[in-house]
Parts: sequence; structure tokens; C-alpha cells
Amino acid sequence: MWSQREIVLDARPRGFHLVTRDVLAALPELASVEVGLLHLLIRHTSASLALNENASPDVRRDFESYFDHAVPEDAPFWTHTLEGPDDMPAHIKAALLGPSLTLPISRGRLALGTWQGIYLCEHRDHGGSRSVVATISGESSAR
Amino acid sequence: MWSQREIVLDARPRGFHLVTRDVLAALPELASVEVGLLHLLIRHTSASLALNENASPDVRRDFESYFDHAVPEDAPFWTHTLEGPDDMPAHIKAALLGPSLTLPISRGRLALGTWQGIYLCEHRDHGGSRSVVATISGESSAR
Amino acid sequence: MWSQREIVLDARPRGFHLVTRDVLAALPELASVEVGLLHLLIRHTSASLALNENASPDVRRDFESYFDHAVPEDAPFWTHTLEGPDDMPAHIKAALLGPSLTLPISRGRLALGTWQGIYLCEHRDHGGSRSVVATISGESSAR
Repeated sequence: MWSQREIVLDARPRGFHLVTRDVLAALPELASVEVGLLHLLIRHTSASLALNENASPDVRRDFESYFDHAVPEDAPFWTHTLEGPDDMPAHIKAALLGPSLTLPISRGRLALGTWQGIYLCEHRDHGGSRSVVATISGESSAR
Repeated sequence: MWSQREIVLDARPRGFHLVTRDVLAALPELASVEVGLLHLLIRHTSASLALNENASPDVRRDFESYFDHAVPEDAPFWTHTLEGPDDMPAHIKAALLGPSLTLPISRGRLALGTWQGIYLCEHRDHGGSRSVVATISGESSAR
Repeated sequence: MWSQREIVLDARPRGFHLVTRDVLAALPELASVEVGLLHLLIRHTSASLALNENASPDVRRDFESYFDHAVPEDAPFWTHTLEGPDDMPAHIKAALLGPSLTLPISRGRLALGTWQGIYLCEHRDHGGSRSVVATISGESSAR
């Protein structure tokens, strides 16, 4: 079976945000997949998706500190500065973390590790809502 | 339906190159997929694939500046230097950006955001042509 | 056809380790796939999977040197330090390299480049064994 839909994630401030619940709430059909894969693509070039620690808010804060340090807004080599100082670093961060996740489905649930959650990584100061295409493929449960 | 083929991308200079048209031109069968996924794997360890801004050439130039800065050729810790100063940094850049993309297909087209394009990221000075394996899976349109 | 299983990778020291053989040995069913994809997800947030050079051990040593340099344990901005100095850098490295790989299958074999091998990237000092979910989808060979 194949299914595909768009998920619109509400606007969030710049930073790393846990969105596992938002994503799962939008995908009731996932419950009927015995074995399969969920693919998520964020349709933007200045936000990204990641899979990481789902418990401590300070982990997500440290992600923001690290990426702001590793991709500084005031680097002397930026030439694409027309859209603001946060724009070009946002493109780089988005490419480092990547625009998509592919996650296994087992018996109607995502087969993630205990501590893994889905992050929306918002790299712009005012990114607005973000669109994600969710594609499920797999074998349905015998019912 | 499943289909798979090799796409050979022409040799390009070191840097970030928009190859969306080259990829799509090689995949006429994509037009008959109603819902599905396109998977691309670059079969090299010193070049990579990314999805990012498809409009401004200066964005792609800034990608090159950033990655040359973040993964310097003259770092004191490189020991694998036999294949030239651009080789080991190329392996790191390739791992940071990743060797593959998985992209949703909807009604015969890639379901990308307006500003998203496929980048060939060439990390060697003289990388030569690059081989990509394209795998399409999905449901065919009823015709 | 769809198949899914867990692969447990033995504990390894901090660093980058070639595990292509371990992964393939656990997946005999791959030999019967004519065209398909293998998806691997590591179910941890402080280890990752990558695809890179499979020949020189010094490449993998330089990967460790690079990532230790790029994500330093003594950065002043870490606040999540309760689980040891290697913990928060491990989360960042895991996100930079990514938790999953999707690899094409062709005529019963992975369709990788000659020099590509699967890396287990162990970012913790004492990470223990690591669990990977392997999901295969594709068309079986006519037999």
C-alpha cells in the first residue's frame, strides 16, 4: 500500500523542536501498516528534519548553540546576504541536517529507539509554517 | 512498480551544481508514477547529493566557501594525504552532506518545494564524471 | 516483497568502523531481491551510520579526528553535561552524519560504488552494542 499527504507544521521560533506527536497525529493510516517505511520531506531550504534525543529540552537548546557557532552569521565569506543575515546560514544548516527522514514502521508503529524523536529544525528567525510531504509504503495488516 | 537505472553526470568543476534537469531528463518513467519515491545514490565517496536553493548561483558559491572553511585542506590532523590535499576533506564533506536523496513523487512529478533543487556536490578538484543509481518505487497511474 | 529484522552490532570503541560484512551477513534474504532498497536505521541518538571509503583505515581515523575537532567536548556553550563530556557532542555528531542509510539493491546485491562501505560511527566512549532495524523492499527474482 502507498499513501501520501501533506502535513503543515505550525510556525515555531528559531531552534530545534520536537514534533513526533504532530507528525503521528496527522498519520492515522500508519496504524494499519504491518511492515513499511515512512518518508518525510520538508519542502523548504532553510529548515530541516532530524532524529535525536526526545527527553531533555537542554539537548535541543545545545543543538541551536552548536549550529549557530558552527555556521556563523557574520562569516566574511557570505555573498548571498540579500535575504538577511540568518538566510545563508539557514541554507547551510538545512543541508548539514538534511531535508528528509526515512523511518521504519513495524506493526502499526514507528520502530524508533526509546530516546529518538523527530525534530523540526527551524533555522530562520521568522520561518513561518512549514510543509512536510509524508509518504507511507508497506504491507497492510491482515484484518 | 519498481524501476532502476544508472545516470552518469558529466564531470563538473569542484563546487555545488544544480542537476535537477539532468536527473529528470534521465527518468521519463517518473511521469507514470501516481504516488511513489525516487531514491538517488551517488556511487562515490568524495562527491555528494543535496537538496537546496535552486535560484541564486551565489547560494551555491557560498556553499563551496563554507565547506572549504569548515573542512580545511591544511588541518594538522589529516593522515590520509596520499591522494592529494583535496581527498580527505572530500570524504568528510561527502559524509556531512550524504550520498543519497529520497524524494516523494506525486502525480508524475517530484513533490518538491518551489525553491528546492538537486545539487551535485563535487568535492574533488578533478572528480570526473559521477555515477548515480536511481531507483523508483510506487503506484502507477491508472491509464 | 517486504522484510524487516533487527541487527545487533557488537560494542565497538569510539570511532568509525566498517560494518558492511556484519550487515550483509545478517540479511540472507537480500540475495533474492531483483530490484529494491535496503533501509537501515540505528536506534540510538549518540551513534550514526555513514557510507564512505572502505579501504584505508587511516580514512576512518581521520574521520574521528575531524569530528572531535569540529564538535569539541569542551565548548563553552554546552548545558547538557549531566551524562558526561562525550554525550552532547555525540548527539551533534549523530545528527550531522544521520541515523539511517537507504541503499539500492540490484540483482541480489547492494549497488554500491567500488569504494563505498557502511560505517558504524560510534560517538560515545562506552556506547555498548547498537541496534539497527533493517527493512528491505523490492521485487523478488523470478525463480
